Amino acid sequence: MNLTIDVGNTLIKLGVFDSGKLKLKKTCIKKDLLHTLAEISEALPAIQKCIISSVANLSGHQLLKLEQLFDVLILNHQTKIPFTNKYETPQTLGIDRIALVSAAAEQYSGENVLVIDAGTCITYDFLNSENEYLGGAISPGISLRYKALHTFTEKLPLLEATNPNLYIGNNTTASIHSGVINGVLYEIDGYISEYHENYHNLTVILTGGDVHFLRDSIKNDIFANSNFLLEGLNHILEFNKH
Amino acid sequence: MNLTIDVGNTLIKLGVFDSGKLKLKKTCIKKDLLHTLAEISEALPAIQKCIISSVANLSGHQLLKLEQLFDVLILNHQTKIPFTNKYETPQTLGIDRIALVSAAAEQYSGENVLVIDAGTCITYDFLNSENEYLGGAISPGISLRYKALHTFTEKLPLLEATNPNLYIGNNTTASIHSGVINGVLYEIDGYISEYHENYHNLTVILTGGDVHFLRDSIKNDIFANSNFLLEGLNHILEFNKH
Repeated sequence: MNLTIDVGNTLIKLGVFDSGKLKLKKTCIKKDLLHTLAEISEALPAIQKCIISSVANLSGHQLLKLEQLFDVLILNHQTKIPFTNKYETPQTLGIDRIALVSAAAEQYSGENVLVIDAGTCITYDFLNSENEYLGGAISPGISLRYKALHTFTEKLPLLEATNPNLYIGNNTTASIHSGVINGVLYEIDGYISEYHENYHNLTVILTGGDVHFLRDSIKNDIFANSNFLLEGLNHILEFNKH
Repeated sequence: MNLTIDVGNTLIKLGVFDSGKLKLKKTCIKKDLLHTLAEISEALPAIQKCIISSVANLSGHQLLKLEQLFDVLILNHQTKIPFTNKYETPQTLGIDRIALVSAAAEQYSGENVLVIDAGTCITYDFLNSENEYLGGAISPGISLRYKALHTFTEKLPLLEATNPNLYIGNNTTASIHSGVINGVLYEIDGYISEYHENYHNLTVILTGGDVHFLRDSIKNDIFANSNFLLEGLNHILEFNKH
């Protein structure tokens, strides 16, 4: 059994895989990590190997404990990955994007795959059918757009993300919800259509924290999979066993 | 002759109209306003009436001087406007949006008109063929998106707006340029298509500071007019003469 850990800015996501299948998924805040790890290792003593996507936000003490419990692989830009990285500056490619493209490489081998991760930022990552990662795009995510409208203007309120009823908002709140959520939807459908025009047999994966807001409103065909990053981490761990 | 003044957060735009035609356009920063006004009134003594879109950022001294030089109309939510406002909360409708819709009402009477103002925010405003303003949407503008990516994440740089060469960015900088500029373009084309599906004979006006970045890359037919707001202010001034 493998333990995969995705350390975000505020939340840590943990997934336990058995023979490639996600058996257990947990989310915790940073200060609860050691407690959560103790629980997991007690419940599932068969876990031996662990991969972690970012240690930037962990304390030395937390990392030490982790290494006492498991055989830990820290994913970085030197880690062996299951695709050819054609990014001009591979050392600046986000660790999370490496994990997502690894999942695409393992699960959709031989296909053109666009991975859309709708989180703090919306990242677009493209792996072609030759298993080459070509790059993509980065735009502000849903909550960042709400935050920007409030922070960088004098009069607009800070709103909680809400699906707009209509594309024509007839008050300020409805106008902002339309502009943010429909704006993101038009952007995502625009990118998918652009890739479709240039690549046949395109598979599109939608993942990230805002999947639930978006999945039913995207016009193009997509696979929604909120575990894609953890699955990618597990693939990298398996890939590095050989 | 009429003088129209659009007071923004950083810049003030001034336009002199003679028989409905823009004769002179000037832009200045706030502290140079009185100097600019003196120049204009000396060069064009035929100016009698003046309309100003926002006095929030002007000093009492500046406003007093303005009133000494011209017969001033301060545009507010009580001002008579040349369209029916169906906004649920008319008192929260931005003064600049009132001016833009007034321009649509006067110049495209009897048509369905979508006005897109690409500035600090991107505002979408829709006037139907019955001269009714129904509302629209508000999303972050180009510079706000660049700023949000830098300010609200730990690792992304602050970039100057640049047209991306490709939709697939193969380094972090190119990924951000694609995500911001193409994201905005897909959003604008998405909105235009949505309105086209619901309203026949739609006229689309694109205005605002980022027109030059966008006008040649939008797939739908649009009229680009960077003076639309000043034209709207002039229409309101004329409308209030009666």
